Amino acid sequence: MDDKFMLMIPGPTPVPESVLLAQAKHLIGHRSGEFSEIMAEVTAGLKWLHQTKNDVLMLTASGTGAMEAGIINVLSVGDRVLVGSNGKFGDRWVKVCKAFGLNVDVIEAEWGKPLNPDDFKAKLEADTDKTIKAVLVTHSETSTGVLNDLKTIADHAHAHGEALVLVDAVTSLGACSVPVDGWGLDVVASGSQKGYMIPPGLGFVAMSDRAWQAYETSNIPKFYFDLGPYRKSGAKNTTPFTPPVSLFFALQVALKMMQDEGLDNIFSRHAKLQTATRAAMKGLNLPLFAADEVASPAVTAVMPQGVEAEKIRSIMRKQYDIALAGGQDHLKGQIFRVGHLGFVGNRDILTAVASLEATLAQLGANGFTPGAGLAAAQAVLSA
Amino acid sequence: MDDKFMLMIPGPTPVPESVLLAQAKHLIGHRSGEFSEIMAEVTAGLKWLHQTKNDVLMLTASGTGAMEAGIINVLSVGDRVLVGSNGKFGDRWVKVCKAFGLNVDVIEAEWGKPLNPDDFKAKLEADTDKTIKAVLVTHSETSTGVLNDLKTIADHAHAHGEALVLVDAVTSLGACSVPVDGWGLDVVASGSQKGYMIPPGLGFVAMSDRAWQAYETSNIPKFYFDLGPYRKSGAKNTTPFTPPVSLFFALQVALKMMQDEGLDNIFSRHAKLQTATRAAMKGLNLPLFAADEVASPAVTAVMPQGVEAEKIRSIMRKQYDIALAGGQDHLKGQIFRVGHLGFVGNRDILTAVASLEATLAQLGANGFTPGAGLAAAQAVLSA
Repeated sequence: MDDKFMLMIPGPTPVPESVLLAQAKHLIGHRSGEFSEIMAEVTAGLKWLHQTKNDVLMLTASGTGAMEAGIINVLSVGDRVLVGSNGKFGDRWVKVCKAFGLNVDVIEAEWGKPLNPDDFKAKLEADTDKTIKAVLVTHSETSTGVLNDLKTIADHAHAHGEALVLVDAVTSLGACSVPVDGWGLDVVASGSQKGYMIPPGLGFVAMSDRAWQAYETSNIPKFYFDLGPYRKSGAKNTTPFTPPVSLFFALQVALKMMQDEGLDNIFSRHAKLQTATRAAMKGLNLPLFAADEVASPAVTAVMPQGVEAEKIRSIMRKQYDIALAGGQDHLKGQIFRVGHLGFVGNRDILTAVASLEATLAQLGANGFTPGAGLAAAQAVLSA
Repeated sequence: MDDKFMLMIPGPTPVPESVLLAQAKHLIGHRSGEFSEIMAEVTAGLKWLHQTKNDVLMLTASGTGAMEAGIINVLSVGDRVLVGSNGKFGDRWVKVCKAFGLNVDVIEAEWGKPLNPDDFKAKLEADTDKTIKAVLVTHSETSTGVLNDLKTIADHAHAHGEALVLVDAVTSLGACSVPVDGWGLDVVASGSQKGYMIPPGLGFVAMSDRAWQAYETSNIPKFYFDLGPYRKSGAKNTTPFTPPVSLFFALQVALKMMQDEGLDNIFSRHAKLQTATRAAMKGLNLPLFAADEVASPAVTAVMPQGVEAEKIRSIMRKQYDIALAGGQDHLKGQIFRVGHLGFVGNRDILTAVASLEATLAQLGANGFTPGAGLAAAQAVLSA
């Protein structure tokens, strides 16, 4: 059925009706006082969400653009960087760093496993000459559903003293606590189509004082992504280049909704959705790709046995109008991923699990009891 | 009054209701077949609008981002480029080129005057060693309302044989004919909030075969703006990074509207709006900043005498709910600019002129006859 789709993917995430409609407002000039008022309000909201007193800048770009901007504004050609990689997005930051001439030291972990903070510690402690200028960490690895131990890795970087902490918080921000100031994170990048509950098109970069100090000596060429002018314009509640005005309307409404819900409630809601989703998969004997202790609050990856992931996705899409995400790169066809990030409630999880049970039955999957997934999810949600 | 604003600025331009509402649709996954169908349709529409058989790529970026992408994908560090500058945007491309280590030869003209094609010709003819790798031209200089003679400058570049033609068509595309293939333009950049009649957030870059040849040897570092992956993904109707899905919904509707109207009708409508606006200003004895022969079809700049431009803008905004643009940089306070680009009809010009007459009367402006502006505009529009 047209227009019946339900998004259970890790982005774009579902967008509330009031946010959708905010985009349909007639535009205003981006050099007007009215726009500056909106920008002041959303800037305050972004600082609240990032738990920071420092700058959070807004770019017309995807999350990748925001992360690239963070990297090229605080580093210089030839700088040594430690990049954690345990999934598609960690891999991407390795590529970005190499594209801009950085000296990349990759710290890998198997896809589905977390980065080991001790690997960072060892490299950082061995670096007595302080050649490591930054540590890059993907907080929630969207491709695998793993939440890396960002705080511990950041602590190791702080013990090193020189290395900045650059974070891809694309699917963690708005799903679990990312206390930017509290954890001493220097550059935190994110994108609008995730926890923000608005459509894609805006990228965000939080910058610490240390990041701005590094900016002063950064020699990587840049113009559109030069964050200096964004900071300078931002101080006057304006932008160096034309901003996506309709997405600002959307962001204004969404941040207000988030503030009404409150950070703690947002995080505990996501934790509950995550637990319920995982309980359901266990109840259905579907193997989870990441262990409980390292699971992302945004997305749950499942590696079905004896039944094809892509067949599950296809039936879910065609017969139940639910979009699940597939695996990426070498995990294509191996896993499916359930997004439970942003504007997602208890009902959505039950809907997805009920449809998944019907799908498994249709595919003749063995080893599961119809109703067992739902029962497990219900137990979590009603607790 | 809230929500009563009428935009008569050169961007963001007014957005049709059907386009506004298209943005309010629930999102779909950008890796879905449904999204690819939309992308195929808008790609075809973009080629139609650009009058090209070659690639037109879509970036999540403002027009400045699109222009930067064009520059850094076809040039290499140290390349000599001729950059035309007769306004704020020409100035900006000089800055972008310098930021990326190009050897910039600026060809200037006074703001409000057009670039002289003979200046390009002289430099290109003198360059027997073929050191000039590109010529950059702002087709419609939004800051002054001047339309540069792009075709003649492009012809000179073709006679040179080596220099690529890079064009900022941000406020010319969709307002007057920009025959990308017909004029042999190699890189043509534009932004969504102009002739496209949709909100800001999408940038477009058309690339010729010669541009793709130059891409092969370009050594300027890039990742997010590396157009190779956009081309490769685009061939499969997908994108390398998350696209602004709601703006694609908007673009789909807007391009359909444009195709229904037809290119010739779009261009003649803009020519009429331009002529009517200019006739009105002449009727009111308000000096036009650019001469008729070089006037932009997108925006008309007016330099009032004896009455302050900012006072006119302020009354127009507060009492008539019409947003006009001001002057930029050294023209701040010296001029006002009337946008007549995109979703603008005859009625809008009359509305603006009628309100302007009332504003001039209120300000006690001398040397104008109330009704003379309207009469002149009406004569053009009813002809």
